[in-house]
Amino acid sequence: MERLLALAKQAASRLPTSTPQQRCKFIQTTADLLIERCDLVVQANAADLAAAPQLTAALRDRLLLDAPRVHALAVATRQIAELPEVLGALVSSSERPNGLRVDRQRVPLGVIGIVYEARPNVTVDAALLAIKAGNAVILRGGTEARLTNAALASVVRDALTAAGLPADAMQIPALLDRALVDALVGRAGGLDLAIPRGGTALIEAVSKAARVPVIQHYQGVCHIYVDCDADLPMATAIVLNAKVARPGVCNAMEALLIDSAVAAQATPLLIAALTAAGVQVHGCGRTRALVGDLVVAATPADYGKEYLDLECLCAIVDGVQGACDHIARYGSRHTEAIVTNNPQTAEQFIAGVDASCVAVNASTRFNDGGCLGLGAEIGISTTKIHAYGPMGLEALTAVRFVVRGQGQVRT
Amino acid sequence: MERLLALAKQAASRLPTSTPQQRCKFIQTTADLLIERCDLVVQANAADLAAAPQLTAALRDRLLLDAPRVHALAVATRQIAELPEVLGALVSSSERPNGLRVDRQRVPLGVIGIVYEARPNVTVDAALLAIKAGNAVILRGGTEARLTNAALASVVRDALTAAGLPADAMQIPALLDRALVDALVGRAGGLDLAIPRGGTALIEAVSKAARVPVIQHYQGVCHIYVDCDADLPMATAIVLNAKVARPGVCNAMEALLIDSAVAAQATPLLIAALTAAGVQVHGCGRTRALVGDLVVAATPADYGKEYLDLECLCAIVDGVQGACDHIARYGSRHTEAIVTNNPQTAEQFIAGVDASCVAVNASTRFNDGGCLGLGAEIGISTTKIHAYGPMGLEALTAVRFVVRGQGQVRT
Repeated sequence: MERLLALAKQAASRLPTSTPQQRCKFIQTTADLLIERCDLVVQANAADLAAAPQLTAALRDRLLLDAPRVHALAVATRQIAELPEVLGALVSSSERPNGLRVDRQRVPLGVIGIVYEARPNVTVDAALLAIKAGNAVILRGGTEARLTNAALASVVRDALTAAGLPADAMQIPALLDRALVDALVGRAGGLDLAIPRGGTALIEAVSKAARVPVIQHYQGVCHIYVDCDADLPMATAIVLNAKVARPGVCNAMEALLIDSAVAAQATPLLIAALTAAGVQVHGCGRTRALVGDLVVAATPADYGKEYLDLECLCAIVDGVQGACDHIARYGSRHTEAIVTNNPQTAEQFIAGVDASCVAVNASTRFNDGGCLGLGAEIGISTTKIHAYGPMGLEALTAVRFVVRGQGQVRT
Repeated sequence: MERLLALAKQAASRLPTSTPQQRCKFIQTTADLLIERCDLVVQANAADLAAAPQLTAALRDRLLLDAPRVHALAVATRQIAELPEVLGALVSSSERPNGLRVDRQRVPLGVIGIVYEARPNVTVDAALLAIKAGNAVILRGGTEARLTNAALASVVRDALTAAGLPADAMQIPALLDRALVDALVGRAGGLDLAIPRGGTALIEAVSKAARVPVIQHYQGVCHIYVDCDADLPMATAIVLNAKVARPGVCNAMEALLIDSAVAAQATPLLIAALTAAGVQVHGCGRTRALVGDLVVAATPADYGKEYLDLECLCAIVDGVQGACDHIARYGSRHTEAIVTNNPQTAEQFIAGVDASCVAVNASTRFNDGGCLGLGAEIGISTTKIHAYGPMGLEALTAVRFVVRGQGQVRT
């Protein structure tokens, strides 16, 4: 573990003075090698899948890296190369009354540790984004993806070498068990940042062991509030998109809140649309009074629950304040949405909810680095420190002060 | 402790929707009440001082709050009222190809816990900055300042009430011992941020107990490198200012590095100036070979040492690369300075050192929120997460996404 960190720190010390051309060449070469070694990667992945028959269908799908997905990964990789440079970028520049020029400039964080589950695309995405911003990474993917990750690591490390960058800017040790992960994040002064991505248990375990900064990517209990001034066909389209398109993702809707002032009209429409799409709706008492035949009774456990499946809560609330109160109690600071044509109500909702992304008349699914214009993301932070919401390249840097004078002293 | 947090969270939920006028009135009223109750504050402080005869002169000076200092505090308070509003400020606004408007907007962090030593001015500064940015604070000042802090807390809390804001936006419980502090920062989901300010032991204890994000304000082992292309009178003035003006602060110079190419000429000049100002210089072997009669021999413990006194290390290094290597080994990521008239060398130094503030031809003492244009600061972060360097109002906020659409769904 000490050796791992020492190699990463050494690589990290060389990256800030690398050129944008080197880092761009590294990313392009990664894409080229992914295509060139597609068969090797796919074979490694097939072996991983064969060795893990116990996985559920959803987990197998996450782990799967077949030829079309390798090609898609190469395309996504080339898009990362196109993203604007952040390393060294000036955030601001001003002159003080004493003539000092004060610049604020982006610098790398240093060494970033990312602990995640068996999702091979994260192996490539996370390494490329971190290195493009000038950081070294130590990755710990799920053990089920061991062979796939080894194949991908050799691609990334060979591309680093081809670009004249230190291969140890990306390390993904095969034998990093839970105790070693704890030791890695528990060493004060070791990593500059740890990012756990995965289930709540993983995030809590890393946070508990950590003596370095941690950015947590917790669950998404996303609500959509349909206001009395909503356009109901628009609300229906947004609710369906947010719940049904990809129910297993963190920005999917988990709870539908309907304004009591429009509930009699809106509830049957919305619930019929959801149930027709195969969604099981857990209804509050007021919902059941309106559409009792279409829903099952919600229990206390349904409030604040992240189903990640074709299920959701439906609760009737009293106006926008009722919606804000519900979200304050059950939300997870991820994504909250309102459907309304009343601009005052929209602003009241925006001011009244605390979430990394608040959406007005749009699907919760837009809380995503690509959709919000960041280009790519390394995850979605639900803590407010350092980054809140999708973390793009900028979130992988710090901003330092550079002061240029002509001999000024402080009086 | 649970009650403390519950009251703070309740207050924090009301602050984001407070008006700038209310927060401004709160700060102005705090200044008014400081003047009005000056005698009470000074008496409380005298009682604190009388109860702590064991304190060193330096600590007594930190704790002292006499009438002139109360008036100075009131002036500083009014300056905080003048700072630009950050709460709700738009950081960026753009339109996506699908017509979504994506705003990035500053929101409060929530509840901030600040653990610090017996410095009563921090009690007022920290509370005002945090609340101006829309946060609630729980403060834990040194026990030696107990009565002073109670008097200051009643000023701040009465000013909150006068402005129609919740008094519990500022809490400074009298009975918050170390075990309770550990419990406070150890409760996951409790504080949104903990800021320990003080000695290394305090910071490490808080970091160890914490299950919430911590921003660390570690020591400042600040170097000044005098290059072969330096203007020596300028270098002398900067070195004297950085070491002698206030030796006990974190942005004071702790080590002087002299380029071997100019050492024969520069070392006698610089060391003579320092010793004439009462500074004890610990010299490396090469320094002693030049000015052996003016310095004492440096031991390994002098490298990377934060003296906080009229003492410093002097080491001869080989050029700017030698300086960068020395700083990589012994620096603390706080402030590093170079004196040179060679722009290429300056840029090499800037690129080669990792610190929250890099200064060229200026004193290290400028690494300060006021000097750098932030208006005021809540401390200087030496970790790169969330803030790097002085933390002003912006560092007390998070930036969220606000998305406004016309019914967009994700395809």
